[in-house]
Amino acid sequence: MVVGSKGNGLASAEDHTKSKKAQKKEAKDAAKTARKEERKALNASQQHDTGSDDDYSVGKYGQIPMIQSAEIIRREFFHVKQLEPDFANTTVWVRGRLHTSRAKGKQCFIVLRQQQYTVQCLIAVSEVVSKFMVKFASNITKESIVDIEAVVREVGSKIESCTQKNVELHVTQLFTVSPAKSQLPLLIEDAARPIKEDEDMEGLNIRVNQDTRLDNRVLDLRTPANQAIFRLEAGVCRLFRDILTEKGFVEIHTPKIIPAASEGGANVFTVSYFKGSAYLAQSPQLYKQMAIAADFDKVFTIGAVFRAEDSNTHRHLTEFVGLDLEMAFKYHYHEVLHTIGDTFTLMFKGLRDRWDEI
Amino acid sequence: MVVGSKGNGLASAEDHTKSKKAQKKEAKDAAKTARKEERKALNASQQHDTGSDDDYSVGKYGQIPMIQSAEIIRREFFHVKQLEPDFANTTVWVRGRLHTSRAKGKQCFIVLRQQQYTVQCLIAVSEVVSKFMVKFASNITKESIVDIEAVVREVGSKIESCTQKNVELHVTQLFTVSPAKSQLPLLIEDAARPIKEDEDMEGLNIRVNQDTRLDNRVLDLRTPANQAIFRLEAGVCRLFRDILTEKGFVEIHTPKIIPAASEGGANVFTVSYFKGSAYLAQSPQLYKQMAIAADFDKVFTIGAVFRAEDSNTHRHLTEFVGLDLEMAFKYHYHEVLHTIGDTFTLMFKGLRDRWDEI
Repeated sequence: MVVGSKGNGLASAEDHTKSKKAQKKEAKDAAKTARKEERKALNASQQHDTGSDDDYSVGKYGQIPMIQSAEIIRREFFHVKQLEPDFANTTVWVRGRLHTSRAKGKQCFIVLRQQQYTVQCLIAVSEVVSKFMVKFASNITKESIVDIEAVVREVGSKIESCTQKNVELHVTQLFTVSPAKSQLPLLIEDAARPIKEDEDMEGLNIRVNQDTRLDNRVLDLRTPANQAIFRLEAGVCRLFRDILTEKGFVEIHTPKIIPAASEGGANVFTVSYFKGSAYLAQSPQLYKQMAIAADFDKVFTIGAVFRAEDSNTHRHLTEFVGLDLEMAFKYHYHEVLHTIGDTFTLMFKGLRDRWDEI
Repeated sequence: MVVGSKGNGLASAEDHTKSKKAQKKEAKDAAKTARKEERKALNASQQHDTGSDDDYSVGKYGQIPMIQSAEIIRREFFHVKQLEPDFANTTVWVRGRLHTSRAKGKQCFIVLRQQQYTVQCLIAVSEVVSKFMVKFASNITKESIVDIEAVVREVGSKIESCTQKNVELHVTQLFTVSPAKSQLPLLIEDAARPIKEDEDMEGLNIRVNQDTRLDNRVLDLRTPANQAIFRLEAGVCRLFRDILTEKGFVEIHTPKIIPAASEGGANVFTVSYFKGSAYLAQSPQLYKQMAIAADFDKVFTIGAVFRAEDSNTHRHLTEFVGLDLEMAFKYHYHEVLHTIGDTFTLMFKGLRDRWDEI
């Protein structure tokens, strides 16, 4: 859920008022006018006026107040990944994070990011965009969430720095929904930069250390690589399940807290279980086999597995997600091998064909 | 995996030999003849002959030796649920459990069960079936796994006691793959009997107590009701995932062992974590919210949740499987409510339409 925080002082009280009015018009809810008027007066008294009379973009930009589910606004948003030349000259609304911005005289370039997709936006002084609006845009902090209304324009030469290379957005309205702090522990741009061994000598090559990444996991997960890892992980599980279900397997869920240590008792975590002790399951093995003896014929399970292995290597994890299957065979264990082999082949084909975009 | 145990003494040495020969013919593997001859001689010396010269069904029934993945036999088995009048007069092989059997003079009725499906089989003395074979059939213990070769016959009046009401199997070959003990802690027939309040007075009405069921979970899980519960559970999870993935959600896996007690610290299980302590997650809440802050926009997770609630009611479980979703909304929390409502509607429709057979 996205929640805006305090205003950033750049938008004038006038902007607030007009912006609110525009929204209200869309919501077509006239009954709340009285309450709005009160809040307007409050805002006006708290913030100082910029005093510029020639700002003809008033109401087209600014910080929107905190979203508190007060109004249902039926505005259709485009996803950044949808922005292709097919929509050239269409006016669209997009909500995303300000990835980077670069002011340059009377214009400002913004890269807007939504998950792993990015698009270039241009805010240039024009009949609808005032210099105040451009200045507002250039001061929005990185990683702020912004709402942009813009016209999709096809570009002559490809924009190599964005995922949407064939279009850019010409901004007509710009609001910050949730401004980010101006100092962040890491920048997504830096965290997303590929590590190249031979590039040490040229240009700025900021790297983000692993401890910084892990201490700020939420920011690090916004990088395209981590977005892709999570999506592929979901893809692997989905394919495993779909393929096995198709082959007649039944998904089961197995207990994690068990009364006795399994598999010899080594590497087991002990849990205080009220007045006694219990253990964390090191494997769903026994439960899968019980299911086979109970005539389910073919079963699989995806779930947490716990191993008390006190080794700090990436091959020893105390907790991981296991993808497990068990089946009865008629005459020869090769029947199981064929099933497993076929499942892997179908999974890799599936990832290639259906998750190639990531 | 199905493994046969020691012979039951009913099948003669001759039977063993012929039965093996029949199998070998199917496998079309002449190279193994020498080894077979040795084993044949061994069997003949260990077992005594029945001495009946008029058993013309020799080789068509008996206990098959333990399956040890020695031979790859490409025999196509039908599933009991496939047995419909479409296949009338076809010869089929079926592997299932002997649910019940009833001998009656020169014939024996067997109900064969495969998961929740049952079919009636008839073994009657004829040109191919000897009285010895009928006797062998009537002595197979309940819950034994048997291989049956039979001809599918359409029946005039429906067989109400089986799920396959329109056909019965006329057995031509019958082998036990894995004989069950003659005394079982409970019979599936008894465990599967619906509990009716008003039926106390008439007929045999054996009930199985809950502690017997729980002590013999593997047997109890073979009842149609438990088979259906597991399949529906798998169905609910599948629908939840498919519907949300379709709506743009990403599946995530969240940690179960966590360093600090969440949600106030009440009802939390403590785990000994090497030299320190850790806790079992009471909810994936924090991790879902981190995923939203990390721009995944919409996520869901299905996994174990742990609550140290010391109450022995069916509404207080120390461990359960949670189906959880989290999403960012644009303006109003009603967007979330609509998504949840729609998901439930689609899930119930899906269960009705795609899991109606269970």
